Amino acid sequence: MLSELKLDQPRKLRVALVCGSLREGSCTKVALEYVANYIESHADAFHLDLQLAPLPFFTEQNKQENQLVIEFIDQIKNADAILIGTPEYHGSLTGVLKNALDYLSKDELKNKPIALVAVGAGQYGGIGALDAMSSIMKNLHALVIPYQAAISSSHKVIQNGEVVLNEYKSRLEHVAEQLLLFTKRISSTDIQHQTVAA
Amino acid sequence: MLSELKLDQPRKLRVALVCGSLREGSCTKVALEYVANYIESHADAFHLDLQLAPLPFFTEQNKQENQLVIEFIDQIKNADAILIGTPEYHGSLTGVLKNALDYLSKDELKNKPIALVAVGAGQYGGIGALDAMSSIMKNLHALVIPYQAAISSSHKVIQNGEVVLNEYKSRLEHVAEQLLLFTKRISSTDIQHQTVAA
Amino acid sequence: MLSELKLDQPRKLRVALVCGSLREGSCTKVALEYVANYIESHADAFHLDLQLAPLPFFTEQNKQENQLVIEFIDQIKNADAILIGTPEYHGSLTGVLKNALDYLSKDELKNKPIALVAVGAGQYGGIGALDAMSSIMKNLHALVIPYQAAISSSHKVIQNGEVVLNEYKSRLEHVAEQLLLFTKRISSTDIQHQTVAA
Amino acid sequence: MLSELKLDQPRKLRVALVCGSLREGSCTKVALEYVANYIESHADAFHLDLQLAPLPFFTEQNKQENQLVIEFIDQIKNADAILIGTPEYHGSLTGVLKNALDYLSKDELKNKPIALVAVGAGQYGGIGALDAMSSIMKNLHALVIPYQAAISSSHKVIQNGEVVLNEYKSRLEHVAEQLLLFTKRISSTDIQHQTVAA
Repeated sequence: MLSELKLDQPRKLRVALVCGSLREGSCTKVALEYVANYIESHADAFHLDLQLAPLPFFTEQNKQENQLVIEFIDQIKNADAILIGTPEYHGSLTGVLKNALDYLSKDELKNKPIALVAVGAGQYGGIGALDAMSSIMKNLHALVIPYQAAISSSHKVIQNGEVVLNEYKSRLEHVAEQLLLFTKRISSTDIQHQTVAA
Repeated sequence: MLSELKLDQPRKLRVALVCGSLREGSCTKVALEYVANYIESHADAFHLDLQLAPLPFFTEQNKQENQLVIEFIDQIKNADAILIGTPEYHGSLTGVLKNALDYLSKDELKNKPIALVAVGAGQYGGIGALDAMSSIMKNLHALVIPYQAAISSSHKVIQNGEVVLNEYKSRLEHVAEQLLLFTKRISSTDIQHQTVAA
Repeated sequence: MLSELKLDQPRKLRVALVCGSLREGSCTKVALEYVANYIESHADAFHLDLQLAPLPFFTEQNKQENQLVIEFIDQIKNADAILIGTPEYHGSLTGVLKNALDYLSKDELKNKPIALVAVGAGQYGGIGALDAMSSIMKNLHALVIPYQAAISSSHKVIQNGEVVLNEYKSRLEHVAEQLLLFTKRISSTDIQHQTVAA
Repeated sequence: MLSELKLDQPRKLRVALVCGSLREGSCTKVALEYVANYIESHADAFHLDLQLAPLPFFTEQNKQENQLVIEFIDQIKNADAILIGTPEYHGSLTGVLKNALDYLSKDELKNKPIALVAVGAGQYGGIGALDAMSSIMKNLHALVIPYQAAISSSHKVIQNGEVVLNEYKSRLEHVAEQLLLFTKRISSTDIQHQTVAA
């Protein structure tokens, strides 16, 4: 079904992964890894790890001078697409993730395909965080992929570092597929940089 | 700049316009017309007029049996892309527009490119309505175009049935361009109907 | 626990109920009735029924002249508090409910306590509709009660016209209690009409 | 007009101020100071300064063990009301502020009155951040004060460390007044701790 991705592709697509959890063995990381594994059959997936390379709180000075920040912005800019995952805290993305996004701008994200995954412990876990991330991405003129995955009651879905429910495996695979399909259409072109003619 | 749209297109794209105002000479209609004129150089734009063909309030029975409803759903289904405009009432889209959207489903809207325009009288007019429509479209798995136009302080922007400020003309033209560019990439393919492989 | 409500109250509080469903025997109506029964031990609860007294689509002329509309606005104005319930359509409130709200303004709703209930068939049903209603109410400067009830997987919660799960009975009772407690504090005073001193 | 606040108050109300900017001389701090000055005629206002006492990124361990975090949570718990201000980054609150909020829970915020102010450089600056904060506070069951202040085009409103436009002075004063009025009604009672009777 994804066979078209194997054809006529001048180079492998590059997908950046950003995880909003700092916790060792977090369910969000497990979910992102699951998506990344699927992606890696068709594209390069690379992690921008906020735990290994922690970004300081946003200031203009840090944006200009901090090497980790400069590297982070650069990697986002060079990615064809981005997969963002977050645990849901209070119906929204985490502060550490929002802080990382604070360093970005339309320069890096305009019309760039973004897939979203959110993980929450409760009955409705993830829904609010997906909304919050969609709104932020809309503000940055990124292209939010319509299909998104909320992993609610996460302790039932992810156990011992594995996604254990087939329904959620399918949802995460669908996130990966849709991200790749849209990215193939969008990134291979200059659509990201089209502007109103003077 | 849109020259690529003239090439290799098997047929003209079809863009449906839906206006959330019932008022004669509404600013929203003027703004939609402005976008439609721009679109018409490159695609067919057709109005689904909720004033000429008023849909009854949503019920399951109306969805099955009302001829105007059936026609409305069918036209949306056959469009390659949709341009939706609404006046902002209380930071959201109008009831008459939401009622029309209530008849739709993922069957008609999945991965379909949607451009959004909102018009409000106040200082922040339109912003809330764009958010509300984005959220509804996300729920229906439509592909919301990142660039959207809010026309605030609408009495300054639209006068005597014309868009009079150049800045807003540019914004509306950019909405049209982006909608066409994304639609060309997305609708010419089967991306709208990709599903997880069994 | 609500004993304080029986003391020093000059008159019974008046709570208006507005239901966003036109369907006979809708789950939303059942949920609102459940809350209303609880409220009626302590206050007068009265329905503003959009099925019995259907409001036309919003126009300025209808707002000025339509008798059902004038009556609706008047009843909202005279209520001490409002309980609004809606089925969730596409992650939002229904069009028929939004259309009714389109007729209202800060004149009737400023600082007025509002309780919200939403009902959806799916796993996350109701969450989006609560958000959408909260946002609209915030725009109208109404006082949205923090505790809200989402009734997801509604076919499991409401059967044969009754709320059958105890957990959801408790949630709906808590909505009623919180609405009454806040209304007693707010409506007995001029807080609703405080403005910045000239 | 606020004379009622001087009567029958057993002790002065305590209002905590939280600022989402780390920048020296930020417009958000200026706006919060303006509100705080007004509040201080009627209540104690105290700053929880994320610059002087920076909280580490959220982890469960930090929540249990970090002294600055423990102090922050304690101060929020003991406040009768909270005033939160944020610069708007990408249509939302800042990461540093979200990270601070990540440490809080319904234990500290249930039914607690919260006033919101947001500051942005652009035409619509602040609106998105108010929405984002409202949504987070709703999730924590806090009582969001209906009247909120967005300071858009902030360079015109705040100059040389002062609020210079009278219209915005009035808006900020109204935020202060409304917060005090609601807090007087709510915090003087046990309403914050009402629960459903067993």
